[in-house]
Amino acid sequence: MMSEFDLITRYFTRPALTSAVSLAVGDDCALLQPRAGYELAISTDMLVEGRHFFQHADANALGHKSLAVNLSDLAAMGAQPLAFTLALALPSIDENWLSAFSDGLFALAEQHNITLMGGDTTKGPLTISITIFGEIPIGKALRRNRAQAGDDIWVSGTLGDARLALSTMQGKLAIEANALNQAAQHLHRPIPRNALGLALRDIAHAAIDVSDGLLGDLQHILNQSNVGATLQADDLPLGAILKSTQPINLCHEFALNGGDDYELCFTAPTTKREAVQHAAAISNTVVTRIGLITATREVKILNAAGVALAIKANSYDHFIST
Amino acid sequence: MMSEFDLITRYFTRPALTSAVSLAVGDDCALLQPRAGYELAISTDMLVEGRHFFQHADANALGHKSLAVNLSDLAAMGAQPLAFTLALALPSIDENWLSAFSDGLFALAEQHNITLMGGDTTKGPLTISITIFGEIPIGKALRRNRAQAGDDIWVSGTLGDARLALSTMQGKLAIEANALNQAAQHLHRPIPRNALGLALRDIAHAAIDVSDGLLGDLQHILNQSNVGATLQADDLPLGAILKSTQPINLCHEFALNGGDDYELCFTAPTTKREAVQHAAAISNTVVTRIGLITATREVKILNAAGVALAIKANSYDHFIST
Repeated sequence: MMSEFDLITRYFTRPALTSAVSLAVGDDCALLQPRAGYELAISTDMLVEGRHFFQHADANALGHKSLAVNLSDLAAMGAQPLAFTLALALPSIDENWLSAFSDGLFALAEQHNITLMGGDTTKGPLTISITIFGEIPIGKALRRNRAQAGDDIWVSGTLGDARLALSTMQGKLAIEANALNQAAQHLHRPIPRNALGLALRDIAHAAIDVSDGLLGDLQHILNQSNVGATLQADDLPLGAILKSTQPINLCHEFALNGGDDYELCFTAPTTKREAVQHAAAISNTVVTRIGLITATREVKILNAAGVALAIKANSYDHFIST
Repeated sequence: MMSEFDLITRYFTRPALTSAVSLAVGDDCALLQPRAGYELAISTDMLVEGRHFFQHADANALGHKSLAVNLSDLAAMGAQPLAFTLALALPSIDENWLSAFSDGLFALAEQHNITLMGGDTTKGPLTISITIFGEIPIGKALRRNRAQAGDDIWVSGTLGDARLALSTMQGKLAIEANALNQAAQHLHRPIPRNALGLALRDIAHAAIDVSDGLLGDLQHILNQSNVGATLQADDLPLGAILKSTQPINLCHEFALNGGDDYELCFTAPTTKREAVQHAAAISNTVVTRIGLITATREVKILNAAGVALAIKANSYDHFIST
């Protein structure tokens, strides 16, 4: 039978892609060295079967998504990805699963030139915990607490298709198989916006990644910056499948509260509109202006007629939500 | 009901103890900055209920042990602990459990002046994943691949009491309740040897922490250094309860293959014996010489009469062992 040690050697040992990693898998610790004048941005996420993904979820997609959600946190800080660690609990050693999972994981890692620098494997209910490291010039991180009244509010990509796929897979909605497949790409293979995050470093005032739902995540920026927001519902960039299959009220609800989008929501001064569009262009990312930061600490969502919609933040909470 | 966000605020937000942490809990990433000329040592461990600890294990001790096993990895590299992240899956929000767990965790964190700089909480089978960060002058890390033929082999503290407690709790052995309580301290509240690891930086050639069993862990040093070892069985520092309750053969077996000791095993040139003893004294740690590194790639375990004992490495493997 394959041992824990063999498993790590066979599936999780690849050449270091980053000169910052001076020692990867194989000692008590790995060694990492940011460049002089840089600091490390660090984020950790844990994905649990039955909570973050369905039982028997596609292992390749799961490898991709486990790393993507962590890369997305670096993107939201404007940090350059360097390396990550992986702690993995598995119910048993299933070589097909391990092969597919590590392929999905490393395909994305190689796209971003990052190194798996250490980890731990153990027997247990399927649980994936990744800690990721990026570097950023000292003081340049995109924070949540720097939004200013008058800033534009922007979001990358489109919103709501991941939630549409989830609701369909849960049997709450019915859409065609082909449409579901397309929407499910957003749920299972989110594209972290790292190039955009890097390009926004000296442009955006504040940023966050949209993981739990736009309204709830934007609220973190508003709380930490002590400001409010007015959003234009008709300007929300709706997922293509969502837009073509669902009534407008549900489109708004899923775009604002859907979650699992892994897009960037950021604020920037109105004088930086061209700079934002340039950052979007060089990172091959679509960005959309969806509203303004306001001095009063409230959130208004207006339709094209200027009428406020009755939609409240309803973020996913891992303990309260079902 | 308490939300995920409230949970983090109430139980896992404490003031940063380390100036290296420029941003802790509350943004997409935390920010960490090693001093100029230093690199970061990073280690990650995952503890799963039913595998690494019993169901209904004491939560305070579990908080302690979760961090201790990670601190022990930094000790084995000679790195100064700075900070850690915590990913926690919980079956439900049990405030008594959370309070006790975080108390145990932070009591040890405060002893080592380290900061919880970020994390993730989710619903799921009880799983604790910590990633820890230390700093070390570039090139000074204690590695596994630097042992040399002729080096003394040393070990800190005592060995085997943790395994004695585990075997007793599993019903495989019977010892008095009072003795079990004492032995169980080694299992539940291991003391990571960070002061010793720091003091050994310019003295030891190679080091590892003993988590899976002395013979198996020493074997990693031997493999990576391409050397062998001769150990003196009668020189092994036996746990006090083990020594006073069990026959000598079982004492040797538990000291050599017990696991969960979280002591340091290290090698140093014979010319450094006084320096090792000085490092032990200033770190208030007992160290014992247990053998020699040899050029031939084999491991011999001798008794006082010079007769080889038939004990093989039998490390705990999370997938193969039961």
